Amino acid sequence: MTMGGLSFDIKKKIPQSLGRAGVIKTANGEIKTPAFIAVGTKATVKALTPSQLKDLGIQAVLGNTYHLHLQPGDDLVKQAGGLASFMSWSGPTMTDSGGFQAFSLGAAYEVGGISKITGRQTELEPSVVRKDPPAKVTEEGVSFRSYLDGSQKFFTPEKSITIQHNLGADIIFAFDECTSPLADFEYQQQALERTHRWAKRSLLTHQKAQSSQALFGIVQGGRWRQLRELSAQTIGALDFDGFGIGGSFDKDDINTAVAWVTAILPENKPRHLLGIGEPEDLWGAVENGIDTFDCVIPTRMARNGTLMTNRGRLNIDKASYRNDLSPIDKTCDCYTCQHFSRAYLAHLFRAKEILGATLASIHNLKFLINLMASMRQSILDDSFVEAKETFLNTYNRGHV
Amino acid sequence: MTMGGLSFDIKKKIPQSLGRAGVIKTANGEIKTPAFIAVGTKATVKALTPSQLKDLGIQAVLGNTYHLHLQPGDDLVKQAGGLASFMSWSGPTMTDSGGFQAFSLGAAYEVGGISKITGRQTELEPSVVRKDPPAKVTEEGVSFRSYLDGSQKFFTPEKSITIQHNLGADIIFAFDECTSPLADFEYQQQALERTHRWAKRSLLTHQKAQSSQALFGIVQGGRWRQLRELSAQTIGALDFDGFGIGGSFDKDDINTAVAWVTAILPENKPRHLLGIGEPEDLWGAVENGIDTFDCVIPTRMARNGTLMTNRGRLNIDKASYRNDLSPIDKTCDCYTCQHFSRAYLAHLFRAKEILGATLASIHNLKFLINLMASMRQSILDDSFVEAKETFLNTYNRGHV
Repeated sequence: MTMGGLSFDIKKKIPQSLGRAGVIKTANGEIKTPAFIAVGTKATVKALTPSQLKDLGIQAVLGNTYHLHLQPGDDLVKQAGGLASFMSWSGPTMTDSGGFQAFSLGAAYEVGGISKITGRQTELEPSVVRKDPPAKVTEEGVSFRSYLDGSQKFFTPEKSITIQHNLGADIIFAFDECTSPLADFEYQQQALERTHRWAKRSLLTHQKAQSSQALFGIVQGGRWRQLRELSAQTIGALDFDGFGIGGSFDKDDINTAVAWVTAILPENKPRHLLGIGEPEDLWGAVENGIDTFDCVIPTRMARNGTLMTNRGRLNIDKASYRNDLSPIDKTCDCYTCQHFSRAYLAHLFRAKEILGATLASIHNLKFLINLMASMRQSILDDSFVEAKETFLNTYNRGHV
Repeated sequence: MTMGGLSFDIKKKIPQSLGRAGVIKTANGEIKTPAFIAVGTKATVKALTPSQLKDLGIQAVLGNTYHLHLQPGDDLVKQAGGLASFMSWSGPTMTDSGGFQAFSLGAAYEVGGISKITGRQTELEPSVVRKDPPAKVTEEGVSFRSYLDGSQKFFTPEKSITIQHNLGADIIFAFDECTSPLADFEYQQQALERTHRWAKRSLLTHQKAQSSQALFGIVQGGRWRQLRELSAQTIGALDFDGFGIGGSFDKDDINTAVAWVTAILPENKPRHLLGIGEPEDLWGAVENGIDTFDCVIPTRMARNGTLMTNRGRLNIDKASYRNDLSPIDKTCDCYTCQHFSRAYLAHLFRAKEILGATLASIHNLKFLINLMASMRQSILDDSFVEAKETFLNTYNRGHV
């Protein structure tokens, strides 16, 4: 079906589950799903050129509205022809609503810490995160301080959508409140009802502007089934082009909270799980009906010298790798594994060479691209359950 | 003619000057001269993959013996199949002798500062340089402290050559003392005579090992014509495969010290000018008979946001570039200028994004590659003098 500037076709379903393989078509190209979307927080996927992203098979890039609004400013990005043009990315783009960063970078978790957040993280270091004063939520929106210069900022659903129109991505998101996983039921319920009112305001702003961008609503509700189902019903009934599922997920939530929501959301619209990118989580999420993901983890881990492999994480700092002339993963077809040894990467990281971040990012992104491609193929081949089992068996055995 | 693992053919000379266009053939490929050799200090041209270097038209890479010996160690590089194999560079490689770094990183300039050194710099920050205690020179060699851990090290001609055999580059250099430009005549003369004895020891070590690598002798002598000519005669008479011209050059020296030396050196062997890479200096050096150059300046400047253009340097920090949607240089065919605006690069540098260093390095290296290619073509077309004049006229007008 066609919605906004977007269409979504389901090619095949996983028998007896909510999962599916499909194709999202945007004005700037297709996304074959399930798909991992690379995060380009500040209009760059860190340490990689757009040409390298294309070579990797990256299908789409997600920019962060909060960061781009503050620097270089969404007006400039609009003048440059939008996010894709500004960063010279020839393919689909997404922007998030800025809500998550306004809260987390403003240390908004008044009712709890952020330590329990496993997946949905920002590109900033914890030290930066903690310095800022809390964000404040009212019915109108969120006031927070810029992480760059401490200046006072105010985001509303209307403002978030207007900024995202300036950024011009193919897929944009409604403004939402991402609550702390430690918040109690009462606060979650109040925040959720506000997020639903903000969703309607986001949609209205979008419709008034007659934008051809696709707008996704965001389902929240924390870990409460009652709230998640209410949110899926409420947001699912609105005229969005697709849906994001937000919140702070623990590993267990993938098979519970995600499934509560996807069981209710309209089947014929795409679903994006915000901020999840751990290999072991992706299988369960896809099985439970998620089509796309974004996450900073593969590139952030890469810059810290942690490489993703079929047998789990490999940390290049380990002393034995200094003399190990074998590749990171001898089964991997990425540029890094085809050309460089563990010893060379270990050397680059010890010497703090920029190329280390680039080569490790290439590997981790290619690992996820290959993983998503094999998941998709297994759905098309009716072998998803076996493929999942095989992967997780090897993966959980750990690295040797 | 063929020498060691190297041959050099002069294709055309600049009339009434010492300059020439030629081809250096090594076991791992050709270098069309005059040529700029990219510096890969620690077995990586900073911020670039070997694939990007190939796309740029980089013909050869020079690694630093001092750095590679300390980290990751030349034994490991040897095990990996040599420098080219270790860093996955499929083309000719060079290594310097390690002498310059042993002196400069050991703050060896007892008789002067290093402030006057314009070209031949290391990849380390000044703060690192100053911390170390002075290096000490004896007839046997140089003792210095490692910049990494302060441990005591000792380089001799024999050791430098043995390390360079382990590193396995196509072209290696004799061990020399690079004196301070502020040293007096008496010290320069003593140091030069020692460098000449070290050159013979380097050659003997090389011949005994029956290495197929090409060994270049290094001419020193500071700013004294008498010493430069003595050095060119002495080193030029030895059985080297080519020659390096070392020392700390001011702009004026390019047309004096270089010409004193090249007028004497055997015409049929290649000449490398160590550590020079400023566009305005390259023309004069080529006219005076230099075939190859290496320098950290293009990549170091790039990481600081300074771009080379036909009209001089462009500093991306300038406020007006933040909203400038034109490319760095609209006449440039590099990946950066073909895909990105000044505003985008200004954003990357302000946001301290790694991609800024990569894109700026691509531009500066491509600028030098194109410059050397146009110089070479002008020699072949008998239009070098006009081409030089045209370039320098525009270049000296500065950036608008």
